[in-house]
Amino acid sequence: MKTLSRHVVLVTALAVTACAPQSAEQPDTRAEDEVAIRDAVEQWSASAQAKDADAFASFYADEGRLMVEDALDTQGRDAIREGMAGMMQDPNFDLSFGPDEVVVARAGDIAYETGTYTLTLTGEDGEAATEEGHYLVVWEKQADGQWKVAVDVPVSDPPGE
Amino acid sequence: MKTLSRHVVLVTALAVTACAPQSAEQPDTRAEDEVAIRDAVEQWSASAQAKDADAFASFYADEGRLMVEDALDTQGRDAIREGMAGMMQDPNFDLSFGPDEVVVARAGDIAYETGTYTLTLTGEDGEAATEEGHYLVVWEKQADGQWKVAVDVPVSDPPGE
Repeated sequence: MKTLSRHVVLVTALAVTACAPQSAEQPDTRAEDEVAIRDAVEQWSASAQAKDADAFASFYADEGRLMVEDALDTQGRDAIREGMAGMMQDPNFDLSFGPDEVVVARAGDIAYETGTYTLTLTGEDGEAATEEGHYLVVWEKQADGQWKVAVDVPVSDPPGE
Repeated sequence: MKTLSRHVVLVTALAVTACAPQSAEQPDTRAEDEVAIRDAVEQWSASAQAKDADAFASFYADEGRLMVEDALDTQGRDAIREGMAGMMQDPNFDLSFGPDEVVVARAGDIAYETGTYTLTLTGEDGEAATEEGHYLVVWEKQADGQWKVAVDVPVSDPPGE
């Protein structure tokens, strides 16, 4: 039985080793996901600076939604592209933003991000008017591994803050 | 070798079987999580109807944040309780809300919810003024398994909608 025992131990060890990597939880990709999202925000803000509505809209999921106070939601990448292209016609248009906090879910499928923005448009008096604000964005990882915006909610700061 | 082979096969099978349940992904609790969140929203809205600021605030995480347009964020359960208690003093105060979509991350740790609300307060003219709106809420499952609000962003609808 000595040989048998040794074989049994060896085979058991091999079997357990073979399944060990699978028996661990899914790999934790949160750190890389956070980097990917922060990179995406940088490019997204750069697309606003470049007044490139196509590039800007490309950061939203197909059915991504933009919720703005006192306005109907803009739903879908195409509608967002159209709305942004119109806004970019304003000669005073200037939009930039960047993240504060990025929190990625354990399975790397959903994340939320808070950050701040600065938006300049032509005001009612014809002069450039700048609004500061912050935002909450929910990101979803797509089937191809890319992070896209599911819901984008900018929130203007109180005047004078 | 016949006995040995049989033992090896048996032991390997046992070892593989033993690790199989662990090699599966974490149990998918998303359906139950969605039910838990929808239940929480129902109780949360009921606490507003009951003008119970303590109960209302209890749905937020310790450091939960309320982002309102043109106002400073209210950060932390205590600050939210205080703000809500003040608002509930208004004799016309009436707040109710409920979820549309609830999306839970694969690992059951983060979720986001969209929904609609109706808020009545006394307007500047001294009459009850009702605002309709929608919202984005990010939920996080706490260490004790309870879902709490990490970020709450109400967004008012356009007037007349």
